[in-house]
Amino acid sequence: MGRRSLLLLLLAFLTPGAATPVPPALRALSSLHLSTSFRSRPAVAMKYSIHYIQQKVDHFGFHTDKTFKQRYLIADKHWKEDGGSILFYTGNEGDIIWFCNNTGFMWDMAEELKAMLVFAEHRYYGESLPFGANSFKDSRHLNFLTTEQALADFAKLIKYLKRTIPGARNQPVIALGGSYGGMLAAWFRMKYPHLVVGALASSAPIWQFENMVPCGVFMKIVTTDFRKSGPNCSESIRRSWDAISRLTEKGTGLHWLSEALHLCTPLTESQDVQRLKDWISETWVNLAMVDYPYESNFLQPLPAWPIKVVCQYLKNPNVSDTWLLQNIFQALNVYYNYSGQARCLNISETATSSLGALGWSYQTCTEMVMPFCSNGIDDMFEPHSWNFKEFSDDCFKQWGVKPRPSWIPTMYGGKNISSHTNIIFSNGELDPWSGGGVTKDITDTLLAIVIPEGAHHLDLRANNAFDPVAVLLARSLEVRHMKQWIKDFYASLRKMH
Amino acid sequence: MGRRSLLLLLLAFLTPGAATPVPPALRALSSLHLSTSFRSRPAVAMKYSIHYIQQKVDHFGFHTDKTFKQRYLIADKHWKEDGGSILFYTGNEGDIIWFCNNTGFMWDMAEELKAMLVFAEHRYYGESLPFGANSFKDSRHLNFLTTEQALADFAKLIKYLKRTIPGARNQPVIALGGSYGGMLAAWFRMKYPHLVVGALASSAPIWQFENMVPCGVFMKIVTTDFRKSGPNCSESIRRSWDAISRLTEKGTGLHWLSEALHLCTPLTESQDVQRLKDWISETWVNLAMVDYPYESNFLQPLPAWPIKVVCQYLKNPNVSDTWLLQNIFQALNVYYNYSGQARCLNISETATSSLGALGWSYQTCTEMVMPFCSNGIDDMFEPHSWNFKEFSDDCFKQWGVKPRPSWIPTMYGGKNISSHTNIIFSNGELDPWSGGGVTKDITDTLLAIVIPEGAHHLDLRANNAFDPVAVLLARSLEVRHMKQWIKDFYASLRKMH
Repeated sequence: MGRRSLLLLLLAFLTPGAATPVPPALRALSSLHLSTSFRSRPAVAMKYSIHYIQQKVDHFGFHTDKTFKQRYLIADKHWKEDGGSILFYTGNEGDIIWFCNNTGFMWDMAEELKAMLVFAEHRYYGESLPFGANSFKDSRHLNFLTTEQALADFAKLIKYLKRTIPGARNQPVIALGGSYGGMLAAWFRMKYPHLVVGALASSAPIWQFENMVPCGVFMKIVTTDFRKSGPNCSESIRRSWDAISRLTEKGTGLHWLSEALHLCTPLTESQDVQRLKDWISETWVNLAMVDYPYESNFLQPLPAWPIKVVCQYLKNPNVSDTWLLQNIFQALNVYYNYSGQARCLNISETATSSLGALGWSYQTCTEMVMPFCSNGIDDMFEPHSWNFKEFSDDCFKQWGVKPRPSWIPTMYGGKNISSHTNIIFSNGELDPWSGGGVTKDITDTLLAIVIPEGAHHLDLRANNAFDPVAVLLARSLEVRHMKQWIKDFYASLRKMH
Repeated sequence: MGRRSLLLLLLAFLTPGAATPVPPALRALSSLHLSTSFRSRPAVAMKYSIHYIQQKVDHFGFHTDKTFKQRYLIADKHWKEDGGSILFYTGNEGDIIWFCNNTGFMWDMAEELKAMLVFAEHRYYGESLPFGANSFKDSRHLNFLTTEQALADFAKLIKYLKRTIPGARNQPVIALGGSYGGMLAAWFRMKYPHLVVGALASSAPIWQFENMVPCGVFMKIVTTDFRKSGPNCSESIRRSWDAISRLTEKGTGLHWLSEALHLCTPLTESQDVQRLKDWISETWVNLAMVDYPYESNFLQPLPAWPIKVVCQYLKNPNVSDTWLLQNIFQALNVYYNYSGQARCLNISETATSSLGALGWSYQTCTEMVMPFCSNGIDDMFEPHSWNFKEFSDDCFKQWGVKPRPSWIPTMYGGKNISSHTNIIFSNGELDPWSGGGVTKDITDTLLAIVIPEGAHHLDLRANNAFDPVAVLLARSLEVRHMKQWIKDFYASLRKMH
């Protein structure tokens, strides 16, 4: 199993559907972590209606006139025709209902902005499949899975809503999204500024592309999170890789390790060792993304500040290999079994079981080519260089397509985006994706907000009693800018009439 | 032959390749108009080199990785690495060498702007055929003929030039184009502002689309040109349609008219009458577009102010039908035989003989859906309403595709483009396309320049002793803005370093 598998999985972590499903209860551990009521659901009742719009499968070609049903959700409880607004969530790589339920910030501010909430599902995810069950069949069916087509869907949907919902026509629309959806929100404002007055791009790594940031920045941030969360924590992880190698060199090592890590399927071949390391690496990456200050259930049910909890088991790197790996198990178990329901840990069911992961894997093999690397010095991972040739060959093997790494920078401007306006880029400093994000103001209308104690798009989550002050400030700043955009919109509307 | 044929031809008049070829000498008239040396070629020697770049056939899909050769021209005689610039002509629907030779303004200002001139050919025109001789075979081969693909070609070409030409990397690029190419220049700045610091969109009817301007505005402007160019001129033309109808009601009428108009192929069926009327209408439209103040050879060799010359034959509308039609012949003959070489007039060889017309016909049947109409009251043409259903059916019959009239406004913002910057829209008041153009400033960086005595993109033509003062002022204003964009670019470059 090559390097690429790890990278694909890494990226798939943006995808909720790609998260490892909670394994069945592991009796021996069930008393360890008693599941409590999670605070991830906001206090605001999330009532939405489900709708569908017919979209062209191909907005950019006329040979096929085929259409498909794109799903979108609407919540208009607080919407006011008079002076209201439309908050438009630019759906990313997963089921839109899941995103809707994890974007409490929009619900929290709906009343203040008199806003209608719209959540648009991204084509090829959730129910919005251009060719139904055949959507992922081959490169011919996948041909219409691009950011450009997705943005065009959003554009058509906004025009449709304005045309068909009485009172919506002369209202300002704001794009919002997180992670890949944050990139889409930013790019949507860049490419369709006539349709949205501004965008909030939360944790959007728009610069995690060719020649824009060092490929090692992502793993470096993951490492920093662990280093700061407990003494010797990152060092323990750094040493674990060689420990795994040494242990599995012996014939009985695979068996021992399978037992020690409570794996559902025992390791049998030497190839399994790399798969195991990849899976463990992904777990640390995931934890860095969801290192939230309160109990949550984003990728998995987790305690508050989960890395701190993990690091309690990783205080001592100077122990025998077997002891170290037993500690690693305890650490992994925080992530995979906080609910106490897991019977064993499953290393093969990470990113491959959901449509979301399939689609995202294709996207990383075409447009969304993000170079990643690690060197084991600035980070706690085994050294892996970024090998585009190998990556490209793997993509061709898997999907029959060749990645075009220079396309996204050509299309969306790379670092040269200063002529655009009204985009807020927010990033949590704990979030590894912040390494590819915009963390400094570009102009006075292209703003960066950095949340020191924030993980992956914490600001988009519902208000929580345990929120650090920084994220409260970030949200209040974001609301202030959105209100200004809305105000400017109405002012220019009045000027026209 | 339905209304659509006329409209297609109308549009094809943007295309040089679509111009009626000069017919062989008509002896009886050869002494009438002695061909003199035309002043259309500017004094500046136009020396360019021809290049090719491999472009993806489909920038927006990965199923096919096929490429084709796009042609472009470079002229770098006046280019300076130090403080220079790149003027990038966004090629439109025809052979790029022809456009290069008809865009003298770029040559005239090259030295002042220390500019490299680049002329990029539009895919599916000239030599830049994605599938060679099969490019127009069917809707599958034509699928990649869209504005989005063309703009993506331009983007890739600019990035390629900056990467490969030493000294070009840190230079400002300005997009320039006329007519459809002017739309592309404006849209290019809107969609790729990271690649061009500004755009000059000359005679670009970016609003000649659904629900943006009255469909009759085009023919109204043509009529005004004729009305102002001689007493009773437009009235004579207005009356000619019924005269043709009356004459051809009689059995011998078709024959008489064929003789009177010196047609190469006699009219034989009643359907031919509509074809004839369409062809004559197109001639008046063409004349309105090329009503230049000096002898020129844009669509045809023509005298200075050709409509004035035409109108000399159309002073008296109160004559018999036969007399009126004989006058119409004299008028047509100005357009088709100024060189004195035409043996007869050919009504079937207008827009169909060139690739350019083929491609443009497809484009009007897909994205570039421009509604036109006439009512015979505000204009001198026979009444024709805009019938989208009929238009669409005809398109499907001809190309197997259905037009999407709302797509261009969705993609490029329609009238709501005020968030963009650094675009100059110039329009000649004589030019019928100015009806769909931007003729008032939108913001202080989205500027309109109106040239009262200008026809179709007169400002892009080479300097001429007979140029009216208004076009000299327009050009000098355009140069001033371009210099400012260049200055701003270098200032921000210095700030970054």
